[in-house]
This record gives sequence, structure tokens and C-alpha cells, in this order.
Amino acid sequence: MLLHLDSSANRSHESVTRRLTGLFADRWRAEHDSAEYRYRDLAAEPVPPIDTAYCQLGRRSEREGVVPLDLVGALVESSAEADAWALTEPLIREVLASNTILIGAPLYNFSLPAALKAWVDRITFPGALALRDTEVVVISSRGGAYGPGTPREGWDYELPYLRAYFTNYGVLDDNIRFISAELNLAAVSPHLAHLQPLAEQSLAEAISSIAAGQHAAAER
Amino acid sequence: MLLHLDSSANRSHESVTRRLTGLFADRWRAEHDSAEYRYRDLAAEPVPPIDTAYCQLGRRSEREGVVPLDLVGALVESSAEADAWALTEPLIREVLASNTILIGAPLYNFSLPAALKAWVDRITFPGALALRDTEVVVISSRGGAYGPGTPREGWDYELPYLRAYFTNYGVLDDNIRFISAELNLAAVSPHLAHLQPLAEQSLAEAISSIAAGQHAAAER
Repeated sequence: MLLHLDSSANRSHESVTRRLTGLFADRWRAEHDSAEYRYRDLAAEPVPPIDTAYCQLGRRSEREGVVPLDLVGALVESSAEADAWALTEPLIREVLASNTILIGAPLYNFSLPAALKAWVDRITFPGALALRDTEVVVISSRGGAYGPGTPREGWDYELPYLRAYFTNYGVLDDNIRFISAELNLAAVSPHLAHLQPLAEQSLAEAISSIAAGQHAAAER
Repeated sequence: MLLHLDSSANRSHESVTRRLTGLFADRWRAEHDSAEYRYRDLAAEPVPPIDTAYCQLGRRSEREGVVPLDLVGALVESSAEADAWALTEPLIREVLASNTILIGAPLYNFSLPAALKAWVDRITFPGALALRDTEVVVISSRGGAYGPGTPREGWDYELPYLRAYFTNYGVLDDNIRFISAELNLAAVSPHLAHLQPLAEQSLAEAISSIAAGQHAAAER
């Protein structure tokens, strides 16, 4: 199963991230059974932020030495906790059922969009995630450039974070692939207009990397 | 003005972050005019996630070479953009009017809570933030330990991120203060119970750091 997540707040045709995840998904769907495809737009239908009931249920699970997913429901002690778990469990099972998680993750203010973090916070229920063979593809667009040697090297708190997060839950480092299109502000901001050729090159590279297909997953 | 933000999803007495920001605020209020105190609970009253209209208004401002705050309203081209700006401008003005921003920022899954990121994403309208003399106090609790020499050193994508973010908008490095209480899971999780003395020490240090007062702002 491919789980395709978009989190760009910009739901118009302007979103580069949405365009790129769409390309990836189109290619994947051309080669797979469409029943195996799941789409979730985290901006259009936000995952509700975790709440007190979620935290209290999580603490109860921790107190028991972490309870297997199937048994968490039995720990519920209030209707608020039942509601929290009813929102959470399907999202976790969706992740566990996925062979590939495709994440559209534009860089917002040097980190991930709040909408994406709301999903991360909800699926990370104590003890629930074990992602052994899962492949993660993160497609990111950003206004500037953050690569080695740029003035903003080290200011990207999104891609290194997502690598740390997913490897912590068992994803192999080689099974995480990042594709990014940089310098998107060059098309918008007059004082960055001279960077437009580099932006176009970055976008073209992202598109060919997607066109090269899933089999390049280990390449970074 | 002190702007006090809480973002812990756990709104019960169990929240260590809320307890610590409360201590800081109580102390501050004992020494200042209460009219100068603003409180915002980002979990109880979430800042709505930015949307397409916000992004389009932001892009228009970038296209103009970044428009001063007072003139952004004149760029609005639709009722959705008017709504987006009506939600955004007061939050930005509140930040600009603050001498001190006190942020309760528990570590969730190695990064900041989604509720806090939603506030960051909204206030970071192109060209709007200039925080020259603002003091920022970040109070954070976390389940584990992330300091130098711990197995989780380098896994904290919250405090380094918030330092980068606020310095980028003009806050002086010396005007950012971090206070954290670590190992809170030791009180909950049986297999971490042996760390409880360290957790208590960390909490006691956080409390004395707050009791030492605002004048220690430059100390880290």
C-alpha cells in the first residue's frame, strides 16, 4: 500500500510540493492496483491536535510498560479517551499497513508544516509504531537553498528531523528518500529573481528523480 | 508586555511545562502591572493552520518586495484573504508589542508540538517580524534526557530550532533563555523508574532557574 500525504497549506496549483507528490503518486498508480493507494490531505482535513485525553491514555500505556496496539482500547477510562483513541487507532493502522509512505512536506519557517506535525504527534502513540520494512519518500519544496555550502546550510530542521523520527521507529536509513525542489521564492521575490535558473534546475532534478521511479529508493 | 504561550496538549495538572510557565508568569506578575500580561493557550484555543489564502497573500507581499505590516491589508484580493489577514495581523502585533515571549514548549516526538508550530507558521508572514529587543524564554519538559553525553544528544529538534528561528527574526542570542525539565517519563514508565532521582533534580533545577528571575535572562 502507498500512503500519500500532502501537508502544504497552499492547496492551489501554486504548490510545488503537491505537484511533485502528485507526479510520484501517478507513476506509482500506473504500476499498482489502485485499491492499494490511500490519499490523505492533511491541510484539507486536518488531523485534530492531540489533547489531554490522548496524553492520559498514552501515560497509562507507558505506566503498564507499553501495551500492544490491540490492547490499548481496553485501557480507555472515559468517553474523551475513547474519542481520542477512535481518532488515533485508524491512523496508526494505516501507517502500519503501508509499504511506502509518501510525504509532501514543504519547508515552513525552517521546519515542517504544523499540519504534518499534528499527524506525527497523533500516530506516535507509545509503543504503537514499528516500521521495519516501510519505505518513506519525503518530497519537499522550499523557498531558499539549504544544501552544503549555502548560507543556510544547517537551517533545515525538517529533513534531518524526519530522518531521525522515522529511523527511531525502525525505518532503515536506506529506505528513506528525500527529494527536494529548492529556491521556489526565486519565481516570486524580485530580489531573488537572479536565482531563477538554479530554481528551475532544482525542480527539473526533482522531477527526474521522481521519474526514475521507486527502484531508486535507496539513492539519496 | 509579557506574552505567555502554552502549547502542551495535556491541559491537566500533569503538564510539567504548564506548571513551570505558570511559576514564571506568577513571578513576573508579582513585579509588573497585570495589564501588561497576555496569556494564550494554543492547545485550548488553537491558532488555525495557515491556508491557501494566507499563502497567496504572502506571495503577493513577497512579489512586491515585501510590504510593511500596515500596508498588507491593502494587498487583500478576496474575502478568504481578508479572513486570513484578520486572523494573522493581531497575532503578529501581539508579538511585536511583547518585551518578553514566554513559551511553554514540551518536546513531542523530538520536536515542537503541532499547536506551537501553527502559531509560528501564522506569525511568520513575509516581512512582518522584526524582534530586535525581544526576550524569549522557552520552558520545555521532555520524557527523556537530551543533554551532552546522553544517548539522545542531537535528537532535540526543538530548542536548537527555536533558537535558529528567533535569531533569524532579530532576537539576540543572549536574549533567548531555555529552561528544561528532563526525564519526565521516569515517573510514569516502569523501565525508567531508576532515573527518577535525576528527573527530580532536573525539575528542581528548572524551578530554581525560574525563581532566580528574569534578570538571569542572558544566562543559559
